[in-house]
Amino acid sequence: MKKGIAASKGYAIGKVFLQEHEEIVITEAKVTDVIKEQKELRKALDASKEQLEKIKEKAAIEMGAKKAEVFEAHITLLDDPEFTGAMKLEIETKSINAMKAVDSVTNGFVAIFDSMEDAYMKERAADIKDVSKRIISNLAGNGGSAFAITEVNTVVVANDLTPSDTAQLDRTKVIGFVTNVGGRTSHAAIMARTLEIPAVLGLSDITTSVKTGDTVILDGIEGHVLINPSEEVIAEYHERNRKFIAEQEGLKKLIDVKTATKSGKRIEVCGNIGKPEDVLTVLANGGDGIGLFRSEFLYMDRESAPTEDEQYESYKFVLEKMEGKQVVIRTLDIGGDKTLPYLPLPQEMNPFLGYRAIRLCLDKKDIFKVQLRALLRASVFGNLCVMFPMISGLQEFIQAKEVVEECKKELKSEGQSFAEDIQWGIMVEIPSAAVCADELAKHVDFFSIGTNDLIQYTLAADRMSEKVSYLYNPMHPAVLRLIKMTIDGAHKQGKWVGMCGEMAGDDIAIPTLVEYGLDEFSMSATSMLNAKRVILEQE
Amino acid sequence: MKKGIAASKGYAIGKVFLQEHEEIVITEAKVTDVIKEQKELRKALDASKEQLEKIKEKAAIEMGAKKAEVFEAHITLLDDPEFTGAMKLEIETKSINAMKAVDSVTNGFVAIFDSMEDAYMKERAADIKDVSKRIISNLAGNGGSAFAITEVNTVVVANDLTPSDTAQLDRTKVIGFVTNVGGRTSHAAIMARTLEIPAVLGLSDITTSVKTGDTVILDGIEGHVLINPSEEVIAEYHERNRKFIAEQEGLKKLIDVKTATKSGKRIEVCGNIGKPEDVLTVLANGGDGIGLFRSEFLYMDRESAPTEDEQYESYKFVLEKMEGKQVVIRTLDIGGDKTLPYLPLPQEMNPFLGYRAIRLCLDKKDIFKVQLRALLRASVFGNLCVMFPMISGLQEFIQAKEVVEECKKELKSEGQSFAEDIQWGIMVEIPSAAVCADELAKHVDFFSIGTNDLIQYTLAADRMSEKVSYLYNPMHPAVLRLIKMTIDGAHKQGKWVGMCGEMAGDDIAIPTLVEYGLDEFSMSATSMLNAKRVILEQE
Repeated sequence: MKKGIAASKGYAIGKVFLQEHEEIVITEAKVTDVIKEQKELRKALDASKEQLEKIKEKAAIEMGAKKAEVFEAHITLLDDPEFTGAMKLEIETKSINAMKAVDSVTNGFVAIFDSMEDAYMKERAADIKDVSKRIISNLAGNGGSAFAITEVNTVVVANDLTPSDTAQLDRTKVIGFVTNVGGRTSHAAIMARTLEIPAVLGLSDITTSVKTGDTVILDGIEGHVLINPSEEVIAEYHERNRKFIAEQEGLKKLIDVKTATKSGKRIEVCGNIGKPEDVLTVLANGGDGIGLFRSEFLYMDRESAPTEDEQYESYKFVLEKMEGKQVVIRTLDIGGDKTLPYLPLPQEMNPFLGYRAIRLCLDKKDIFKVQLRALLRASVFGNLCVMFPMISGLQEFIQAKEVVEECKKELKSEGQSFAEDIQWGIMVEIPSAAVCADELAKHVDFFSIGTNDLIQYTLAADRMSEKVSYLYNPMHPAVLRLIKMTIDGAHKQGKWVGMCGEMAGDDIAIPTLVEYGLDEFSMSATSMLNAKRVILEQE
Repeated sequence: MKKGIAASKGYAIGKVFLQEHEEIVITEAKVTDVIKEQKELRKALDASKEQLEKIKEKAAIEMGAKKAEVFEAHITLLDDPEFTGAMKLEIETKSINAMKAVDSVTNGFVAIFDSMEDAYMKERAADIKDVSKRIISNLAGNGGSAFAITEVNTVVVANDLTPSDTAQLDRTKVIGFVTNVGGRTSHAAIMARTLEIPAVLGLSDITTSVKTGDTVILDGIEGHVLINPSEEVIAEYHERNRKFIAEQEGLKKLIDVKTATKSGKRIEVCGNIGKPEDVLTVLANGGDGIGLFRSEFLYMDRESAPTEDEQYESYKFVLEKMEGKQVVIRTLDIGGDKTLPYLPLPQEMNPFLGYRAIRLCLDKKDIFKVQLRALLRASVFGNLCVMFPMISGLQEFIQAKEVVEECKKELKSEGQSFAEDIQWGIMVEIPSAAVCADELAKHVDFFSIGTNDLIQYTLAADRMSEKVSYLYNPMHPAVLRLIKMTIDGAHKQGKWVGMCGEMAGDDIAIPTLVEYGLDEFSMSATSMLNAKRVILEQE
């Protein structure tokens, strides 16, 4: 048995298809006919483009237009003068072979992007590598199709799977995949969950531990792989798989069920969203509302900040689609690990303890006001709650509300309307807010506990740091006590409390949270049905 | 009135001596006689050395051998082949004038050191600039003496004061100083406090706001400067100054007083130390013990880790000097902003939330055991308490104690002795430890509250970050509640609680801390007498 990372839930029992590590050795060669070499490059680029167009179409059908966007980005790279243009130039100026030129330009770009702190930029490095691999494969005459899978019930085993590898998998034959590298947030993991194919990643040496034709059991729940197991074990896993599938089917029946505990306490199960269109998935999974709209997503992947009207349209869209169900929008939470190209932030030694979220908004009131005006204007289209992130004490909430009042006054004088019953709340994600929840509750309309940050600060452990992530424990007694203090503090003032961190969708945490009296659970749309199931089982 | 940073307490009422910004314009000139130019450089280096030797002697007498060490480092720089050797080479290879060569080599070094995150390295940049300025001044024929102060009651006003500037001040004439740049931890500030000369720093434009001969009042308590004040104001400040001096004299009478509240509760006032010899200053100020020995100082400014025997000698020295008074030694607290040249740490995005202190020690047991063995062996020489830094929960304390047991077993089998009554405690500096103090108190012998970190984590605000340091507030209700929870939790189990963060010496905080029942206050030796005074006033 090999332990790895459970990246996509489910079981797969089948035969291995081992993707050989087709290592193309790239050597530099001087060429005399530069024009011919540039033509070879052009041919490879065209072939790559054609392949990617097909992959994109397939991905759009199987995974939806949004997930297929990554391939559009890859295609654009093939026409980028700074990328492929540089390759052409490299051949000319150095009189070298195309393959070496592709390799050297790629390495230059990858080095730049890889050195950036930003997760988004690091991902760009992965994209560039993926495209470059394809160009080189085409130059080598290997074509672009990596997999020649002919058997059904195949478990693909590879060192790594690029987005295009994953998109090309034949879903009628591939029932799971396993890799040496990658984690829960890698491209391969996200793709696996979208395709609903079980996957175990990060097994480090799985490609040398199995060969094509071996029988394996992939356990995407526990995150391990059994190699050539006995008949009994196979039978046992077939049984587990049957139960798992039945459970998944059972969950679908919960879509329209209103969630309550056995003793009848109604509990809201809501969705977290990034982009406005994500609201549709929340509705499809029977969400009672939106517990967290991460408005910073509207600000990302752009050249400049979204205008008031652009934001207004986005908020209006979500509020209208939710048809009167509660929508909690969090104001801009930028800084920390999230940066914007058009908003330079100071270099800080500990960005998680720095200039971010409400701290930045109270400092840059012009940016903040654009968002608040858009929110106020959109409020007439539904049931809006607004919350401020990274509130450490009462003063910041009061200051934020003052800016709100300023915007209201402006809008009134402009003759614009807004709802009078907007609820104004705060994220409880800094220990001080939890410790003083009883006092803060006198002033806010609601709390939403952001466990991801609350846990990090309470335990002083950055969960992104490999060396200390073992300390990140949602069930640490101190974390549980702070959550309880927050809920008790709010209830004493008759206010409601939601939770929008990952903990809200965690099977193990839900019973305790229900017992503490948490009123609203918000999570990714794909976790909602399971959370409903667990809540329905509580007293 | 100009606001600045109160860097050294006290008042000064006197006439301004404005240190003109003697800007030497350095231009590049081609020289034909390279040998002659190199000789000029040599002459300037020799003159600089001679001046620095004198400054060092003066500093040693006035400020003690330790403070004079910085000038030894400056003298060493003058002989450093990588520094002055490079200047000589620069003249030769580029055929340029000595002044330009000094300037360009200096800039190269400063750029390297300045770009480093490490505060220690940044300070090296300041040293290099100081030495370079002196060499250039000598090359320009200005000599090395910056100040020609002839009047008594002089307040020196300068853009900045280098360590050598400060050391050269004639204390019979200079009663205070004021600068445009610098903060509470700058060289100039530290020197001012050592010399007990009041100082206000960081006034940005004071050099253009006053001229030599102006009358100024320097208020080193409030951190401001009054320019050409009225006779009434001068009279008022003379009165304040009289009171201040009387107060300082009064404090000295408290050296041998045992501190207790009016109602008779005995409270220990202890000192924080870095190097073993600091223990002498604590004793001179009547310390009841050592509340924090930052053992990491033994590991700094070296090429390799201190051996077990070296550490043993240091601990033994402190324990013996304290003659049975309690000595709390904190185990190695490295990582975060403190690094060691011989211990490579992983690059982390948020080092304050990362791999440091007990996390590192439990991971690198070989390093940890050397220290624990030294502590155990030294324990027979006094009253030793050992505490572990950055404890987030019970598990870490138990693990640390297991390593202690391992060391005890080894020592026993080697026939080495150690005290059986060592107290084992933890720093409470992570919110989770404060929140769970009642549970932790069942297992530890004592707590020491590390407010500097506790405040940072509780408010998620890095106090080193200029943009958010305004949030760093020891009197935040959440911080006070966590302190109270810690004290209450400990007392319920009959354990004692100390505090070794800056808050313990803060006039404003002390009354609240006494009320909460804090048993031991530990601070820098220079704050102890004032803390005694404030505690004696409490009910």
